[in-house]
Parts: sequence; C-alpha cells; structure tokens
Amino acid sequence: MKSCTRTCSFKCSSVSQHTGRIGRGTRVIPSMARQNQKLPVQIKSQGLGVSKMKRSRSAASTARISLVTVAEEHSHSHKGEVLDVGDAESMEAFLDSLKYNSDGQVVAIAQHVDTGAVLMQAFATREAVEKTFNTGKATFYSRSRSALWTKGETSDNFINVLSVHVDCDRDSLIYLGEPIGPSCHTGAYTCYYSEVTGAEGLPASAEGGGVEAANNTLYRLQDTIVSRKQEEATGGKPSWTSKLLSNPELCCKKVREEAGELCETFEKQEGKERTASEMADLLYHSMVLCAHEDVSMEDVMEVLRKRFGVSGVEEKALRKK
Amino acid sequence: MKSCTRTCSFKCSSVSQHTGRIGRGTRVIPSMARQNQKLPVQIKSQGLGVSKMKRSRSAASTARISLVTVAEEHSHSHKGEVLDVGDAESMEAFLDSLKYNSDGQVVAIAQHVDTGAVLMQAFATREAVEKTFNTGKATFYSRSRSALWTKGETSDNFINVLSVHVDCDRDSLIYLGEPIGPSCHTGAYTCYYSEVTGAEGLPASAEGGGVEAANNTLYRLQDTIVSRKQEEATGGKPSWTSKLLSNPELCCKKVREEAGELCETFEKQEGKERTASEMADLLYHSMVLCAHEDVSMEDVMEVLRKRFGVSGVEEKALRKK
Repeated sequence: MKSCTRTCSFKCSSVSQHTGRIGRGTRVIPSMARQNQKLPVQIKSQGLGVSKMKRSRSAASTARISLVTVAEEHSHSHKGEVLDVGDAESMEAFLDSLKYNSDGQVVAIAQHVDTGAVLMQAFATREAVEKTFNTGKATFYSRSRSALWTKGETSDNFINVLSVHVDCDRDSLIYLGEPIGPSCHTGAYTCYYSEVTGAEGLPASAEGGGVEAANNTLYRLQDTIVSRKQEEATGGKPSWTSKLLSNPELCCKKVREEAGELCETFEKQEGKERTASEMADLLYHSMVLCAHEDVSMEDVMEVLRKRFGVSGVEEKALRKK
Repeated sequence: MKSCTRTCSFKCSSVSQHTGRIGRGTRVIPSMARQNQKLPVQIKSQGLGVSKMKRSRSAASTARISLVTVAEEHSHSHKGEVLDVGDAESMEAFLDSLKYNSDGQVVAIAQHVDTGAVLMQAFATREAVEKTFNTGKATFYSRSRSALWTKGETSDNFINVLSVHVDCDRDSLIYLGEPIGPSCHTGAYTCYYSEVTGAEGLPASAEGGGVEAANNTLYRLQDTIVSRKQEEATGGKPSWTSKLLSNPELCCKKVREEAGELCETFEKQEGKERTASEMADLLYHSMVLCAHEDVSMEDVMEVLRKRFGVSGVEEKALRKK
C-alpha cells in the first residue's frame, strides 16, 4: 500500500510497508517493526516533515526561540522518519522547528553508537546544533562559560557524530556517535558512572541493580565476565565463567555445542522460548571466549558497523562463500 | 590494594581493584574496566558519596534548589560508585545533592535496560525523583500541566525502573528500565523516531546514517535482518540475509561453521582481529536464525537479564552441565 504522497507524507497506515523515499525528506522503514507490542491504529502525529514546516527565515545564527506549527495533523501509525537537511533551506527550517527553552536551548544527549551507552548530556543552542551538523563533532552550549562548546576542543576527546535524532516534542536531540577517549571530564567513559541504589521501589541486586554505569544487558554481562577474568588473576572465587576462562579448550567445546543446540531449536521445532534461551547460552559462551582473547563486544560491534558502512554485512558474508 | 576507608571513599587508585563495599554506600566494581583507552592517573573527582554530603535537611518535598559542596576533593581514578539511599537520611541527602535548575528540575532520561535505546527525556523535580525511587515507576514533572507525572498513569505504558544513575554534575539522571508498551505518546517505541540526515558533517548512508531510531549497532543489524524478512514476504531484492531466511537449513550450517571458525581463532592463535571478525559473523548468522524463529535480541537479552537476577548466568550455565 503506497498511500504516502508528497502532499501528505503522514498517511501511511503501517510501520513496515514502505522502504522507499516518500515525499520530500520523509522515508519510512520498519525500524520499529521489531516491537512485539501492537501499535494503536489511530494516533496523533507530532512528527513533522521538513517539507511541511512553517518557516521563519533568519540569517542570525545566535540562539533564539522559534515557534513552529504543524501545518496539518494526520492520523498515522508509522514510526520512523528521515528529515533531510541537505540544503540550506531545509537546514534552516529544521533548526527553526526545534522548541528551544527560554534560554534558547534544547537538550542534547550524546550516545555511543556501538554500545548504546549515554555518554553525557548537555544543552545545545541553535548554533550548537548547526555546528554539530556542519562539523560532525558533538557541540553544545556551555552554560558556565556562556559559549559554544565542541566537546573535545580542549581535551581532544571529541565525539564523532554519525547520526542525529530528534524527539516527538522537538526539544531533545540524540547525538549518536563514536567517542574518542573518555566522554566525562573526570576521565570516565560516561558521565553517568554513579548508581543510586537501595531505594524502596527499585529491585535490590536482582534484575539490574548494582552496576554503577547505566549499561544495557549485553554490556553488563560483559562487565561480569571481565570482572571474573580480573578476579581469576588474583585468585577469585570459583564460578563457571572463571572455569571457562581458565580452560579455553572447554570454552570452545561449549561454543560449538551451544551453536548446535541453537540450531536444534529450529531443526526439532522446540519453540521460541528454547531458541531465546539457547541464543543466550551461545552469546554468553562466545563472549567468554572473546574475553579470553581480550576482544570486547565493542570491537565486535565496530566490525559489524563498518560492514554496514561499506556494502552491508550481507555482502561481506556473501564474499566469504 | 585496599586503600579505601570510610573516612576517604575516593582514594582508590584503580578502577578494578575492589569489588566489596567500601565506606558507606560506596562500592567500586570494574564496570569501566572494559575501556580500552588509558585513564589518566590523576583526575579530579566530581563524584560525591552520600555519606560525605553536606546536608540541608528539609521536610518539604516540593522542588527547590539545593546546593551541595564536596567536603573534600581527592585525586582518584576509579569510575563507578554506588550511592546507597536505603535510609531516609541518605535519601534526603541524595535528593538535596542534585543540582536543580531555576525551576527546580533536573534532566531525566529513560533508557531501555535491554537495548540501551533512549526511550524519552523529560524533567524531574525533587518530588518526581523521590517518587521514582519509592514506586519504581519512571516519574517526571509535566511542565505543561505543572504537575507530577508518572509515565503511564493514563496510558498504562509505565516504565519500570530497575536502576537510577546520576551524572558527574548531578543535574542529569538516567532511569534505566523496562518499558511496558510504547514509550512515546504517539505510540512509537521511543520518542526519538526521527533521524535528521543530509548534513554536511555527518556521514551519508555510510556508518550509521538513515536508521530513524537511535538504535545502537546490534539493533540496527537486527532491523536490517527483520526488514529483509518483511521484504522477502513480498518478494524483495536478493541478499545473503534473505537467502538464509528462506533456507534455514543453510543458516544452521552457517551458524555451526561460524562457531567453529570463532573457536579456531583461539585454537590456531589467529589474533584479536580475526576473533572480532568471526564473532561478528557468528552473531550475524545466529541473529538471522533467531529472526527466522521470530525471536528478537530483546527476547534474548531478557533471558540473560533474568538469569543475572536470580543467581547469575554462570550458575544457570553450570546447572546445564
């Protein structure tokens, strides 16, 4: 169903029906299709294509408040749009469309492209956002120094921005990028190195507690494995992970076994639950082997990302045949 | 080396030397040890243990500005601390320690514990943070309604918070949690469903462009695989992924092969680069098999997270022996 047209770029009825460009600067791909939950059939759009913006042109590059209204509201359910700012007019319109606060700022969150870790959060003026777009370096507004601030300009710890994402309210941005060195001025990997625990409503050490950095599950697992490796060097307590680390031949045997067990969940039609469980086992054991070889999941993700960047992981895989 | 004491909880000289509790409410674990970069030997601490806070007690639970000074500054390099707010006094001290803006608010970022996706960002007052701690439901301050706002209170799309993280400046929080349903009021999985592309300083479709949602590499790869699956149903263009999806027996063969090749990087000492590359291959092929079985990486991560929650992935793995 191709109901999207240039006139109305919001009339798609489904998340996953389009992959081509629709209208000007609006493209729909099924990036949300992995959601298991059902999306409501009728929802109000807060999204806004660049081509549909009401523009207030200005040559000034200083921060200022910009009010933009949506020309029309459409019922739609697609999630995922691309706003093309490739020409000066679109860029201006996009920058005008942001809902700056009374200080002329929006929230800007720098996130690690490979791990998903939130590295830092600061505020960005119109000028800071524009500079980020023009230079590819995460740029903010330093409220203490009242000046534009490209992260890394003094420390060389730049954050190379690979993509920029804006929220439904247009007052918050994600700079998704690759950090050069630590992102925190303290030398930490991320500014969010402190975890608050012990509160009544939060789980104790069960399910996610006590990890300090706001890592997601994959990197929490890696942290656990790496800490076993470090403990092992100083004679830590026995664990399955440390046993595997000290006996990489056993670890290899397990990796092969788990790969076979994952395949069997298909071959013997054992059901989704078994597939998820065996994939978890395979992932865990192969991560232990990687940790033994001092290879991190960041290293692995970088390989995958760079394959996307050239001709896709698929073609790379095909070349191996 | 156990140089940390209750008197000075910031004298640790290394990220990874401690795993036990040190002082009151401060624990150091090697969650940052996976960083490849060298950390500077001497860095200034902006971190601040709850036990070291200068407290300004107040029974009022309304938003207000709170100034907290660090009692002492220490040179240290550890990254990763736990602030225990398990008793009323510590909770009060922590809430006082946050640097609220002139409206009495800090930034609060809700992040998906399994995928790392930033779900939404809003602002939180002292009361909102406290309510989050007490209820385990992500709570903000609605600036439009001038009222406390627990996400999901009208839609039932709560975000169950598993841990809370605070940044070095104490003016920004991460609510790391598990969303129930879509997080965006538009029905989208995350509020950041729009990508801005075409800017001069950003890579084009290479390395990370054109993905709409601010997904990290693992979930981008999954999106690509899932979109191939959807294309296949409607006769998409040929690709290695679609070939594997239409021939799951071949996919299984590849999963077993790639597992073997990963092991060989250890067995034949092929070096880190080969290990990362083979792990990438194994991950990709096993993800295709999972996609064929309608199992998402979110499903897999949930399995892993729940294993952490009970007795650790290691013990679970051990039980299988």
